[in-house]
Amino acid sequence: MQTPWEYRYANRTQRMGSSVIRELLKLTEQPDIISFAGGLPAPEVFPVEEIKQACIYVLDNFGPQSLQYSATEGYRPLREMISRHTGRYSVKVTPENILITSGSQQALDFIGRVFINQGDHVIVESPTYLGALQAWNGYGAQYIAVPSDENGMMVDKLEEALRIGPKFIYVLPNFQNPSGTTLSLERRKLLVELADRYGVPIVEDDPYGQLRFEGDHLPSLVWLDSQYRGDNGTYTGNVIYLSTFSKLLAPGLRLAWVIAPEQVIRKLVHAKQAADLSTAAFNQMVAYEVAKHGFLDEHVKVIRATYKERRDLMLEMMAETFPPEVRWTKPLGGMFLWGILPEWMDAAELLNEAIERKVAFVPGGSFHPNGGGTNTMRINFSYSKPEFIREGIARLGTLLKEKVAERK
Amino acid sequence: MQTPWEYRYANRTQRMGSSVIRELLKLTEQPDIISFAGGLPAPEVFPVEEIKQACIYVLDNFGPQSLQYSATEGYRPLREMISRHTGRYSVKVTPENILITSGSQQALDFIGRVFINQGDHVIVESPTYLGALQAWNGYGAQYIAVPSDENGMMVDKLEEALRIGPKFIYVLPNFQNPSGTTLSLERRKLLVELADRYGVPIVEDDPYGQLRFEGDHLPSLVWLDSQYRGDNGTYTGNVIYLSTFSKLLAPGLRLAWVIAPEQVIRKLVHAKQAADLSTAAFNQMVAYEVAKHGFLDEHVKVIRATYKERRDLMLEMMAETFPPEVRWTKPLGGMFLWGILPEWMDAAELLNEAIERKVAFVPGGSFHPNGGGTNTMRINFSYSKPEFIREGIARLGTLLKEKVAERK
Repeated sequence: MQTPWEYRYANRTQRMGSSVIRELLKLTEQPDIISFAGGLPAPEVFPVEEIKQACIYVLDNFGPQSLQYSATEGYRPLREMISRHTGRYSVKVTPENILITSGSQQALDFIGRVFINQGDHVIVESPTYLGALQAWNGYGAQYIAVPSDENGMMVDKLEEALRIGPKFIYVLPNFQNPSGTTLSLERRKLLVELADRYGVPIVEDDPYGQLRFEGDHLPSLVWLDSQYRGDNGTYTGNVIYLSTFSKLLAPGLRLAWVIAPEQVIRKLVHAKQAADLSTAAFNQMVAYEVAKHGFLDEHVKVIRATYKERRDLMLEMMAETFPPEVRWTKPLGGMFLWGILPEWMDAAELLNEAIERKVAFVPGGSFHPNGGGTNTMRINFSYSKPEFIREGIARLGTLLKEKVAERK
Repeated sequence: MQTPWEYRYANRTQRMGSSVIRELLKLTEQPDIISFAGGLPAPEVFPVEEIKQACIYVLDNFGPQSLQYSATEGYRPLREMISRHTGRYSVKVTPENILITSGSQQALDFIGRVFINQGDHVIVESPTYLGALQAWNGYGAQYIAVPSDENGMMVDKLEEALRIGPKFIYVLPNFQNPSGTTLSLERRKLLVELADRYGVPIVEDDPYGQLRFEGDHLPSLVWLDSQYRGDNGTYTGNVIYLSTFSKLLAPGLRLAWVIAPEQVIRKLVHAKQAADLSTAAFNQMVAYEVAKHGFLDEHVKVIRATYKERRDLMLEMMAETFPPEVRWTKPLGGMFLWGILPEWMDAAELLNEAIERKVAFVPGGSFHPNGGGTNTMRINFSYSKPEFIREGIARLGTLLKEKVAERK
């Protein structure tokens, strides 16, 4: 059906494109496919009973208030809780530094809306989080891709990028999506120092920071920046910090938060007024009730144990079944690892064959803003139960060995 | 605190501005102010118990699935229910014509994102819904304002506007926000005919359509368009239709929907992927459980009765206490009425004095995209309990009489 809407799309509509990952998520709905493609938390760890009790509590005690329109900034007790929590493990902030968003994706969108003009440059890691690229493509961002290795962004190549005059630097320091790597402490310090020297601010995206299975927690960029400036734990405003309840509580509530300077929060609030007025009051109150007495501090241990078991099994199975021509990262936390195929192998073609064998992953190309990475793949280890990890990796291993053998 | 973010705002950030209404909503948080300013439904009519039972049912029966990431298009059973409901009272659509959004505000934002280039013209009623202007200002829309009277947009002045070459026409035909007026059947038919003749599509925003207190339901533009084209109730795609659960169920769940051609829905889905991935699965499943057996058909009668009582009381009090120099609309439904002050009176100045007397409304100026309307005001009758309507309107009446007497 042809409609008069068809030839009326805005120029940016072309740039928005679609999401390979979201389309692939549809595959996970076919029950016979073992999918390592999605970025889904394990549903087994969702605290269903606690959320149910919180729903009942909120509706019994706050009733209509929880179902009404609410402040764009977010539910104040939740913002206060986040500011207390942040002050405990990182910098000192007030609730005025915090905006609740409908998932971190919305925070990325608002950052694009408030800061990115058509043609502006943004420094990203390569590979980087696809959702950020999708959020910013529509605003006409151009990307300066800084390569990364097993220790995250190669910060020694950052100065060259900074000289181009970017709007900001976007980085996921902990258990990065897609690569699973963690930015080393040394590089974190250098990154903060260079950003300061060039006067370029940082967006620190940290959805997985609390999901560390081993080794010591590394300080956040927002905290290091405060130290570097001698502000000793007071929020300096050079870093916008993003985190989320999606990985600690449940993504289906759509709750995340931004920490930013007050003036920036006000701009983000205006963006949110125009975008969706507010995040569901009910969801915020439920999350607050679940979390207010420290439940998540205990619950995160369950998540870590579950994901560590799955990561360990996946690494073991890969060592056992993958041909020696394939390499992969060993993440210390999070939800993803990164496979590097031989140069001649195309991950997108491999996926087509993998789907025939009822196993899926995400080809790495789309995580590279300026092309490349066609021989890479993102593999999620958090979602699938151990028996499926065992079977799915074995299937992939068999396929990979066949491909390598064919080539020889 | 000066931060490097301050001088990095995008050009559109300036255009986004803030929301007078949202700032005014803060006044409603002062418990001693009687506020007719917000656009809030009556919390007394929220079906708290039904929502609680639905939360329990969803978590007991679907548990983790309701808390997981979900399809960007929305929860399929909810989309199927909406398509059945739409087919019953309006045009025939499929779930592929429907996208669930986080409130209608998000649908307006996506329409701007997908269709509006910097400088594009959009035809709106004057006055029109402020949220639409806020959504589209950031995309650089320019507005062609067609004046309206007690029968809605003055469609006889539309042709002149159509010749300018607008992207689309935006109209709220039922109990318009802010004016409370309803577009007459004759004008609806002419609007659809002119839109078709000039090949300009329509965005029909209908949050209040089911909240009619008296008189006959008038056919929607989307239905009239189908009739006009001889498609006899099949969706023709010339009209994008918006509606919401905010007024029928509860705004704090943040659930609305868009009906559009399939190709347009796909573009809106891409916008939603970039904006927030998806609307909370849990909220959608709860709304579906509450509504699936026809509960809302009964519940809407309670809402209508409550709002009719409040409107009647407000009209009665205005007739009793307002000076003859002030006029106002008599809405047949919805949540708002519109006051027209003497030409020399400035509603924004009046508001300052009204707040001192602990009563609030919204000055009408901001609903006029191209200026004017400084002597108009929006008054909400749905939110305040009868005793507050009585007292608040009496206070306003006293103030208005004093202003008129001062002038004489």
